[in-house]
Amino acid sequence: MFGHKELLIQYREYQAGMNYPSQPALLYEPVSYILSLGGKCLRPVLTLLAGQLARPADDRVLRAAYGIELFHNFSLIHDDIMDHAPLRRGQPTVHKKWDEATGILSGDQMLIMAFTAMRMAGNDLSILQRFEQMATEVCEGQRMDMDFSGAAVVYEKDYIEMIRKKTAVLIGFSLWAGGKISGLKNAVCEQLYHYGVEAGIGFQIMDDVLDCYGGEGFGKNTGGDILEGKKTLLYLRCCEKANEKDRIDLNRLMESSFPDQEKIAAVLAIYDRYNIRTSVETTLQEKFDQADAIGETLLKYDEVRPEGITLLKEYLDVLRMRKV
Amino acid sequence: MFGHKELLIQYREYQAGMNYPSQPALLYEPVSYILSLGGKCLRPVLTLLAGQLARPADDRVLRAAYGIELFHNFSLIHDDIMDHAPLRRGQPTVHKKWDEATGILSGDQMLIMAFTAMRMAGNDLSILQRFEQMATEVCEGQRMDMDFSGAAVVYEKDYIEMIRKKTAVLIGFSLWAGGKISGLKNAVCEQLYHYGVEAGIGFQIMDDVLDCYGGEGFGKNTGGDILEGKKTLLYLRCCEKANEKDRIDLNRLMESSFPDQEKIAAVLAIYDRYNIRTSVETTLQEKFDQADAIGETLLKYDEVRPEGITLLKEYLDVLRMRKV
Repeated sequence: MFGHKELLIQYREYQAGMNYPSQPALLYEPVSYILSLGGKCLRPVLTLLAGQLARPADDRVLRAAYGIELFHNFSLIHDDIMDHAPLRRGQPTVHKKWDEATGILSGDQMLIMAFTAMRMAGNDLSILQRFEQMATEVCEGQRMDMDFSGAAVVYEKDYIEMIRKKTAVLIGFSLWAGGKISGLKNAVCEQLYHYGVEAGIGFQIMDDVLDCYGGEGFGKNTGGDILEGKKTLLYLRCCEKANEKDRIDLNRLMESSFPDQEKIAAVLAIYDRYNIRTSVETTLQEKFDQADAIGETLLKYDEVRPEGITLLKEYLDVLRMRKV
Repeated sequence: MFGHKELLIQYREYQAGMNYPSQPALLYEPVSYILSLGGKCLRPVLTLLAGQLARPADDRVLRAAYGIELFHNFSLIHDDIMDHAPLRRGQPTVHKKWDEATGILSGDQMLIMAFTAMRMAGNDLSILQRFEQMATEVCEGQRMDMDFSGAAVVYEKDYIEMIRKKTAVLIGFSLWAGGKISGLKNAVCEQLYHYGVEAGIGFQIMDDVLDCYGGEGFGKNTGGDILEGKKTLLYLRCCEKANEKDRIDLNRLMESSFPDQEKIAAVLAIYDRYNIRTSVETTLQEKFDQADAIGETLLKYDEVRPEGITLLKEYLDVLRMRKV
């Protein structure tokens, strides 16, 4: 059995071995480009970790991991166009390096390639059905996110539902697919799914916290969400807890053209007044606790090798430690 | 057995019976909107015509027809963004009625829905594999089309390959899928595929001719391609046949800012000098003749009901007569 570091190397080698048609160059070059930007390949590694729970993972698990990474990168290309983002992992986004039409079309092609990879990996219509369901939820989540940016009021439960769909279901699916393809029975796969979803919600809330308080070194501009006026959980929690004056001040601040550092400091001062960081970190911890509880239940299944669970939990712990 | 008019009504009823989630509204409303713009539903009708060749078509054939129409409309939404097109079937395009982000995301969702419909229709991984292959070719064709607009020289064979991928393979797949799902053996399905591809190339060349010479009443602005500087088969054939002076004049004209009617008249005058219309119509007729020849071979299979072939040919004839 392999730890996450070895699996990451295995996955990267597998992905690097994929060949794309040379023509039309402007269709396939952006595919290679976005995949080459690297990142931590969180989702493929999760698929491989789940895929070795029952028995050593085979090529089909790798293929599923690749399909999931294709899907994730399709969504990044299209989201970056929708969000007018200039950079991705410190490099120009596809639509900046080429143009929007190229981003749209190569993104479409990656979505089709993701379906191909999932079909080849699963050889099973029920896996494709689940993949479609997940993909639909990701689109719904992205739509909710766009709708929220223009909404007067966003309720916390709707925000959580948005991040569940936009990011967490793909984490859940990554584990589910690894388990399913390696032959784990459905009940175990469902537990893996929920494990991933709860952890995924936790990671997203952690990102919100880190963006405000994380400091440098995480590839994040501290305070970037505040400067963009993003409705993060910190902001929503503050709107809920603050008195009317502070809430009005907060909203004015978020829309103001104050210098960046002043704006961030002023917003954080209001957050501090209501202990928002602690409050949100409590919610975050609850999510991780829920994930842990589900993780425990996995141990009761005979077909699951305990060492595999240890390696999976180890990776999720690393991801948490890295950040909070 | 049903003729194309009855099948169009059947298909429209089926499509109208589809329900989409009400939320997020801005994800699903554009899906209903673009499907409601109607059009002649060429591809679904072809699927239904092929789907009754062996036996009366069942719901699975209708589902495949719907999946193909979803795929076609996904590509229309995204192509319209890439081409900055304001109108589709006389109505605002999705990205004009809403915005580009909405067009990208609802298009993505329609592509996912198309995969779902094809899975439900086929219940067979080989149908999905063929669908992915077709979808890939459509993206490649769209990319070639975009590349050609900036290319100094485009060879006619590359242009034909572009329209084969961009539009004809979907026509071929529409027939293939109807045949396959209704249980026709692979050899017949392949003939249906090639029948559709040849006819599809013919239809696209016919569109090029009609845009120049078709007159009103076909939902086309006469001369629109000339005004857009599109490299149609007429233009490419003219570049090939014309002497250097005329070729230079033609290219200058296409890029000029002359008043619309003057520009169109001047380009057509050069085309006429080289009998371009007749020359291209000959190519077009060859494509239709190839399609007809393949159509004949379908009659030799015992499992194919001759009346079904008659109805299919009748529809393709109507589509031709309508235009040329």
